[in-house]
Amino acid sequence: MPTHANFRTETTQLPPLQQGEALVKTTYLSVDPYMRGRMSEAKSYVPPYQIDAVMGGGAVGEVLESKSDTLKPGDTVVGELGWQTHAVVSADRLHKVNTDLAPVTTALGLLGITGLTAYFGLVDICDPKPNETVVVSGAAGAVGMVVGQIAKILGCTVIGIAGSDEKVAYLQDELGFDHAINYKTTENMYKAIKQACPGGVDVYFDNVGGTISDAVLGNISDGARISICGQIALYNLTQADVGPRAQTPILIHRAMMKGFIIMDYAQRFPEGVKQLAKWYGEGRLKSEETVVDGFDKTVDAFLGLFTGANLGKQLVRV
Amino acid sequence: MPTHANFRTETTQLPPLQQGEALVKTTYLSVDPYMRGRMSEAKSYVPPYQIDAVMGGGAVGEVLESKSDTLKPGDTVVGELGWQTHAVVSADRLHKVNTDLAPVTTALGLLGITGLTAYFGLVDICDPKPNETVVVSGAAGAVGMVVGQIAKILGCTVIGIAGSDEKVAYLQDELGFDHAINYKTTENMYKAIKQACPGGVDVYFDNVGGTISDAVLGNISDGARISICGQIALYNLTQADVGPRAQTPILIHRAMMKGFIIMDYAQRFPEGVKQLAKWYGEGRLKSEETVVDGFDKTVDAFLGLFTGANLGKQLVRV
Repeated sequence: MPTHANFRTETTQLPPLQQGEALVKTTYLSVDPYMRGRMSEAKSYVPPYQIDAVMGGGAVGEVLESKSDTLKPGDTVVGELGWQTHAVVSADRLHKVNTDLAPVTTALGLLGITGLTAYFGLVDICDPKPNETVVVSGAAGAVGMVVGQIAKILGCTVIGIAGSDEKVAYLQDELGFDHAINYKTTENMYKAIKQACPGGVDVYFDNVGGTISDAVLGNISDGARISICGQIALYNLTQADVGPRAQTPILIHRAMMKGFIIMDYAQRFPEGVKQLAKWYGEGRLKSEETVVDGFDKTVDAFLGLFTGANLGKQLVRV
Repeated sequence: MPTHANFRTETTQLPPLQQGEALVKTTYLSVDPYMRGRMSEAKSYVPPYQIDAVMGGGAVGEVLESKSDTLKPGDTVVGELGWQTHAVVSADRLHKVNTDLAPVTTALGLLGITGLTAYFGLVDICDPKPNETVVVSGAAGAVGMVVGQIAKILGCTVIGIAGSDEKVAYLQDELGFDHAINYKTTENMYKAIKQACPGGVDVYFDNVGGTISDAVLGNISDGARISICGQIALYNLTQADVGPRAQTPILIHRAMMKGFIIMDYAQRFPEGVKQLAKWYGEGRLKSEETVVDGFDKTVDAFLGLFTGANLGKQLVRV
């Protein structure tokens, strides 16, 4: 588990603006579980962060100065600004945000990488059909919440797994999940999922891994599709990740399990954003965010991801 | 592990031939690992055998009498005859074998369910590309041997995993595998696979499961495809099948794992047989069989599958 001791805050002078660059003032920072993977030298799907370098991460900001033809002062942009109050970035690595479409923070959440992760990981990998049963773990997290809502739009029965009674109530009452399970207070997850999914689990969108996923795998139906998006239960694990092997249920049920990272879908982002924005505009998709105030709260916001402090997308207002 | 005590031989009177049926004299019986799964009430991809019923299984035979328009005495047929010297079967459940095309035993092996399992499990699920590295476990078994040969035809580098030095030599010297590993004498399978596959494992065709598969999964490349065909290492397991969870390597490498049973491809069997027969006719695909003589050796032949007594397809000449 990371601690404050892994981070330090420094005040430095930004380099002078070069042709094609913009000076951006950060307004909202995104903190995400995947960042934990980059804080390790272990082989992963993203390269490790470098020690003494600025923490990377997506953010929204306002252009203060520009030496680019495509950006002007006052523009709202989203991009990899890192954990900085100000950043000098090449303009071609920034995207302008249309603030008429939706609140600016959705560029980091529902209409950004978070929403796209949910969309492609569910629709492209699992292809859920109406009346199928979809289970999503980490259901009250940024990605999980969007996954469940999309599955409902597609006509599925949706079961969420989350870590508090408040989250369970939110998923059921506010987001229209058919059922949600608090894994922290449920003695036998296998039985709880069996009861909630009497016909078996047709689609499983996995954000957490570990014993929760064991319980879901024990309940898959023939032809099940499993999307591996994240394994937050394991990111701070200090022993080997050992459990029932997945191969037997996958064989018996002719199931499919696939891992993905969202950048593999970069070419299809416009298609995804268009669909998400349409559903959002129709009021069928809600954007839920937990926002903490103050750049100095960034590390706290990040650490909170691993104790489940957030409901939906965790942001920092700088 | 099954024993002779699980079986008994009985002599009975066959029922009189009805319209549409044929009396068939069995000439070759197939014994296969999947039969072990049917000797258990545990949920599996095939229904359990019934106690006191005839053991099911594919066989080749000669028609002695027929009350069907499609079959006449002397025809060679393949079908689900079970472990019997003679069987009365509905003609529409039998297929005529063209004995000019290939030896009759290939109807149970290379040009039958065995070859089709290798073909669709490799080509359809894993879609191997030229120069990719393909690993197959149970490589000297009936299915594994065909998988490796098809992968060579498709231009892949092929590594087989088998259980004796004789099998390893056979795979390398007779079937053209690039490399083979004797898992029984290899201390560290992870390292042995890493050494044999320096660029990682792009495709894994899994017949065995357990610790051998753990070692392969530790070596998969980005975008790897894993076909789960069988898990023979587990069929006689008396404790839980526990090991490193597959989800982390599948996520890190954006890999895909899929289980299948060959009957899911029934509609495409003609396409598969045509391709396999073409390669066989061109001399690019060899059919290897281990044949024991005598109906009374059937149980021995079946039990031998779990100790690796067979090279290629295990048959019984009745």
